[in-house]
Amino acid sequence: MSSSSSSSEQQAPAPSAPLVAPSDTKLKCGILGCTGAVGQRFVLLLQGHPFFEIAVLGASERSAGKKYKDAVSWMLDSPLPQAVANVPVVLCNPEEFSVCDLVFSALDNIVAGPIEESFATANIPVFSNAKNHRLDPVVPILIPFANPEHIDVIPKQREAKGYKKGFIVTNANCSTTGLVIALRPLHEAFGIDKLFVVTMQAVSGAGYPGVSSYDIMGNVIPYISGEEDKLVVETNKILGRLSEDKSEFVSADIRVSAQCNRVGVLEGHTECVSIGFGKKVTVDEVKAVLRKCESPSSDLVLPSAPKISLALTEDCTRPQPRRDADCGHGYTVTVGRVRECELFCIKMVVLSHNTVIGAAGGSILNAELARVKGYL
Amino acid sequence: MSSSSSSSEQQAPAPSAPLVAPSDTKLKCGILGCTGAVGQRFVLLLQGHPFFEIAVLGASERSAGKKYKDAVSWMLDSPLPQAVANVPVVLCNPEEFSVCDLVFSALDNIVAGPIEESFATANIPVFSNAKNHRLDPVVPILIPFANPEHIDVIPKQREAKGYKKGFIVTNANCSTTGLVIALRPLHEAFGIDKLFVVTMQAVSGAGYPGVSSYDIMGNVIPYISGEEDKLVVETNKILGRLSEDKSEFVSADIRVSAQCNRVGVLEGHTECVSIGFGKKVTVDEVKAVLRKCESPSSDLVLPSAPKISLALTEDCTRPQPRRDADCGHGYTVTVGRVRECELFCIKMVVLSHNTVIGAAGGSILNAELARVKGYL
Amino acid sequence: MSSSSSSSEQQAPAPSAPLVAPSDTKLKCGILGCTGAVGQRFVLLLQGHPFFEIAVLGASERSAGKKYKDAVSWMLDSPLPQAVANVPVVLCNPEEFSVCDLVFSALDNIVAGPIEESFATANIPVFSNAKNHRLDPVVPILIPFANPEHIDVIPKQREAKGYKKGFIVTNANCSTTGLVIALRPLHEAFGIDKLFVVTMQAVSGAGYPGVSSYDIMGNVIPYISGEEDKLVVETNKILGRLSEDKSEFVSADIRVSAQCNRVGVLEGHTECVSIGFGKKVTVDEVKAVLRKCESPSSDLVLPSAPKISLALTEDCTRPQPRRDADCGHGYTVTVGRVRECELFCIKMVVLSHNTVIGAAGGSILNAELARVKGYL
Amino acid sequence: MSSSSSSSEQQAPAPSAPLVAPSDTKLKCGILGCTGAVGQRFVLLLQGHPFFEIAVLGASERSAGKKYKDAVSWMLDSPLPQAVANVPVVLCNPEEFSVCDLVFSALDNIVAGPIEESFATANIPVFSNAKNHRLDPVVPILIPFANPEHIDVIPKQREAKGYKKGFIVTNANCSTTGLVIALRPLHEAFGIDKLFVVTMQAVSGAGYPGVSSYDIMGNVIPYISGEEDKLVVETNKILGRLSEDKSEFVSADIRVSAQCNRVGVLEGHTECVSIGFGKKVTVDEVKAVLRKCESPSSDLVLPSAPKISLALTEDCTRPQPRRDADCGHGYTVTVGRVRECELFCIKMVVLSHNTVIGAAGGSILNAELARVKGYL
Repeated sequence: MSSSSSSSEQQAPAPSAPLVAPSDTKLKCGILGCTGAVGQRFVLLLQGHPFFEIAVLGASERSAGKKYKDAVSWMLDSPLPQAVANVPVVLCNPEEFSVCDLVFSALDNIVAGPIEESFATANIPVFSNAKNHRLDPVVPILIPFANPEHIDVIPKQREAKGYKKGFIVTNANCSTTGLVIALRPLHEAFGIDKLFVVTMQAVSGAGYPGVSSYDIMGNVIPYISGEEDKLVVETNKILGRLSEDKSEFVSADIRVSAQCNRVGVLEGHTECVSIGFGKKVTVDEVKAVLRKCESPSSDLVLPSAPKISLALTEDCTRPQPRRDADCGHGYTVTVGRVRECELFCIKMVVLSHNTVIGAAGGSILNAELARVKGYL
Repeated sequence: MSSSSSSSEQQAPAPSAPLVAPSDTKLKCGILGCTGAVGQRFVLLLQGHPFFEIAVLGASERSAGKKYKDAVSWMLDSPLPQAVANVPVVLCNPEEFSVCDLVFSALDNIVAGPIEESFATANIPVFSNAKNHRLDPVVPILIPFANPEHIDVIPKQREAKGYKKGFIVTNANCSTTGLVIALRPLHEAFGIDKLFVVTMQAVSGAGYPGVSSYDIMGNVIPYISGEEDKLVVETNKILGRLSEDKSEFVSADIRVSAQCNRVGVLEGHTECVSIGFGKKVTVDEVKAVLRKCESPSSDLVLPSAPKISLALTEDCTRPQPRRDADCGHGYTVTVGRVRECELFCIKMVVLSHNTVIGAAGGSILNAELARVKGYL
Repeated sequence: MSSSSSSSEQQAPAPSAPLVAPSDTKLKCGILGCTGAVGQRFVLLLQGHPFFEIAVLGASERSAGKKYKDAVSWMLDSPLPQAVANVPVVLCNPEEFSVCDLVFSALDNIVAGPIEESFATANIPVFSNAKNHRLDPVVPILIPFANPEHIDVIPKQREAKGYKKGFIVTNANCSTTGLVIALRPLHEAFGIDKLFVVTMQAVSGAGYPGVSSYDIMGNVIPYISGEEDKLVVETNKILGRLSEDKSEFVSADIRVSAQCNRVGVLEGHTECVSIGFGKKVTVDEVKAVLRKCESPSSDLVLPSAPKISLALTEDCTRPQPRRDADCGHGYTVTVGRVRECELFCIKMVVLSHNTVIGAAGGSILNAELARVKGYL
Repeated sequence: MSSSSSSSEQQAPAPSAPLVAPSDTKLKCGILGCTGAVGQRFVLLLQGHPFFEIAVLGASERSAGKKYKDAVSWMLDSPLPQAVANVPVVLCNPEEFSVCDLVFSALDNIVAGPIEESFATANIPVFSNAKNHRLDPVVPILIPFANPEHIDVIPKQREAKGYKKGFIVTNANCSTTGLVIALRPLHEAFGIDKLFVVTMQAVSGAGYPGVSSYDIMGNVIPYISGEEDKLVVETNKILGRLSEDKSEFVSADIRVSAQCNRVGVLEGHTECVSIGFGKKVTVDEVKAVLRKCESPSSDLVLPSAPKISLALTEDCTRPQPRRDADCGHGYTVTVGRVRECELFCIKMVVLSHNTVIGAAGGSILNAELARVKGYL
């Protein structure tokens, strides 16, 4: 299969260069749930970050008191960064994180709800990967490449919740994230009406140890608990708009039908999508929009943002998770096989890195946006 | 994941017993293209068959003249049957097959067209797995569990083509086969209007050596050449009806949109389907139809037919290709996750064994049906 | 790769037929640890067994009180047998198993030791898959295809332990089992001196959920805790002899060096072996011994024993775990690539089904042997 | 599994910086066999190389005349470099390569022999990945991290073969390369006597399309044609010495026994090794040698050489191919699990990237060494 020119651009390194942090002092951040799969990804992605430096690592009682290297069962292919190897792990209480300007939460949803609230109450902004507060009417599901304007609900949230300096910003579920980044420019240009999506999701989306090798080797599991509903609800909140007075989210009112599958892939969720618009749209029009697509936040300089948030490939055998998930260091979403749909309007394939842009990386972008917009 | 009661029934062995061949003499059959993946599957499935015995093995010039065991690069997990190990391979000319009452064709579509016609002209009925004649208006795409009545186009075919005793019967493409077996009872009961299908197909569907391990390991390839069109066209021909005078096929006029993917699975195509009917239908009504479903040909005794051609599972994590493809020795299609669709009417997952019911086994069932109906 | 004639024989079905149980009443058996991977395999393999029928299912407090189908997370590809689906699970106390004539133990080694002893003390013989008692000087590591005579230590064990009717028989570790079945006839014929073995072991050997898919997909893990030592110690006990007064085991005194690896295989341990004998032996002599090899217990009729316990293949690309592990329904060990070793005498590859002959199936054979020899 | 400190150092980027090419003009190189798997890897690794720039791309008649992007079926996960996409492919005749100062050969061994000789005769030095000339007594099997001094056979080769400016340098077989890089310092320090090696080799070692997914998925193939002999012969030539008059290679006289397996891994050969020395050596002594090991050519500045050519890990679960093959951008060999052997002296596990250091990257290092040593 020959490689398209677009795909080579996609992998251009994220612009490392002419970025100036809003202030010359790095903010101190903490990580809640630092030992799990997403927590490890936070640790990795925050190494050498221009805005943030890891100050405190938090986990459950089982890990508290140990050095990070002893508490964690490191599973990422890149090695555990030496800088944090000997950092002592503490409990996830706000008092332990008093030096922090913000925390990233990789907590399990069984405990995330009240813990995250306690941090916001204690004036520590929370950038969460957990699902608990996503459906709260004053908490945004924020994706800088899709709905950066939703961040401006924060004043309303503070008012409603009685937070002073704190607040909670969530990211989307991993299978929603890639989808809405690809859909946002099309929704803006043409108005999406209805949407079929069938996912083929990587095992890393299930955490660690996650999916048993005995279950998934040479197999497909046509079910992921709760995933299909998340795609319906989150897509409509994210692609909806923030009301003019910035007090509430108005649903995008897209009819969504989702089917979710687990496949034997390490990283990268692949999604087959069929889209209906309110009007007739051609394949060329869709491609033109995707091609010129730059992230809605591109005028804001976010250090982790790739050169392009969305890449379009003309190679009919792409995108493929193993070959394309790392595009833009895992921050770029790749779209391919844009073609007519016999039933709706357009069919296409969307691929995203589920643990970078779809999890820890997404929350880091959210914190970068908050910093640039003055909320941090 | 706990196992449903239905899935245990599914794997009941095919009824080996009280079957009597229409006559007590077995028919002699040949295999065209005996060295490829489908050819090997024909060889395996025809061992000890009550109606047919392998008399001649045909392949290309590269193999002709060798013993079968030396010509073939045997790739199936079950071993090469000793009974055919030393059979000499001949060229695929009708003269070489003059002792045969019928042939099964596993020929590559690059050569299948004229060779299959030459056999039909030479009074040797052809049961083909190749796509070449599928769209011929007087050649049936036959699936005994879906459209057994289509076999009755044979007299018209003979008349139109000038065949005396010969004829050509094709089976469907592997991804179509499982789908239409699951859809037939629903189409009959409720009338299908429109259909979304996203497939996750096994590597064995690509033949042997087929898909390079370097391409598919830990990966998904969101493209299979020509596959999506076949799903559209073949589904409509198979679910359509044979005209009253048995001279032509009337399309089912179902609007179909398909997206096809290759996944790292050995055997078994998984398909996520959304179905729209002409009227409102409930999940319970759909399940009731599927549950009582017996193959339309169940009053005819076909030796390879399983106890049930269609199994319904209530285990929400099933069907899975590695665990369910062998159901009914690969002849039973399994349906699961029947639920409401937010856009159409019903969503469900369909699984079938792509090289048994979806390829060689399907052609064998076709020949069994032809035998029972007196066309052989 | 063409298939050898031997490999086709290997897969002949286990003789289902003319076996008569020593008495016409089946013995009642229990399963300790019925919900784990090995426990499930016991349940599956004991369906329709001619000697034994499952009477009681035991597990930990978490499962006790539930129906089996609700307590178990069934992971085998064959479905959960309906006959046991609604059997209530009890705690692993001898009182709960008072109707049992014997128990099979699939207990975790963290708890197996004292529980198994309590059953033996309570006059219920134990056939264990756990490692706890394997190194006890009066407990045999029994493999009917390798050292059936070791069963005769039972009287001495009863005397030493104060058991009346009870006793404990263990099977070997999964990676040892296949190896010693292949080595026994060679050790008998030529006397093995020293042995290199490098294993490539299936994920099912780690239980369920066992190995995380994130760790093993597309990977090799060159370490299995404790495994290399087991290969050294167990091999010497099993290939050693029972003293003439049947009171102790005399080590075979073979120098063994083992390296153990986990690979992305579902079932079937592959082992690359180099063997040194006390004298010069040719490849042909080794093959001759393996070929005529029949299990040492072949004069005893064991219902689960395959036609041949050891198969020799001349196909240089075999044995392969996915294609050969099921040989003899998982009870036959396959040996291939027998050739000269530049350093020792002979190199070869040994393959065995690690959860059938290497785990549950091995214990069932042990109980069958005990029954036939009058210990049950 | 916790990560060792050494493994984090290993992945430090290759020193990109303070390297000065011997002259400030880059040499023009050609690639013979540019469309295959190794040819593609040459193309990728030579992008932006400080010494060499690709001037001509050669392949067989099937490809000649096409643009590279149209001739190649690009299979690497990194995209096809745009700089060569439109380069026309020519036939592998020296005349077509007259502008070249050197060529890299990724030719198939069926044709490599005479073609490579014709280039050497035409005054174009050849750095070959093919096996054809490896056993020629005046052609070195060169690995700068193992036997850099062997390059000095070139004058003798020119004399013997009648080459003027041309010569042929080969690299080792992929499974030999990693092994000898790990063994060289031990052989130098202690003198290796005998060696057992069992390999678990990645599918990329078989080229492209190479191993069929149907053969290797969930499987192990215990055979790679010719591989075991190469390990025996090449290891002895490479670890042997060049005679004082630089006219011939003296074998290392190590007794080697090898068993080679293909496993379902993408990149990275894992090798379980047992080593016997001429004297008693402790684990600590071995580790000390490996730890202080720097490549024998480390005083020569080779641009592609990693900071360390050999890394030692103390994590008992490492090295693993998926996690460690990319160490040093694929140029660093990782050794782990160094421990006592019950039979020989030391057991350990060696891992190397089979298509970087084990193939194309190895040849590039050879050309870099030739450049620095004045042979180019």
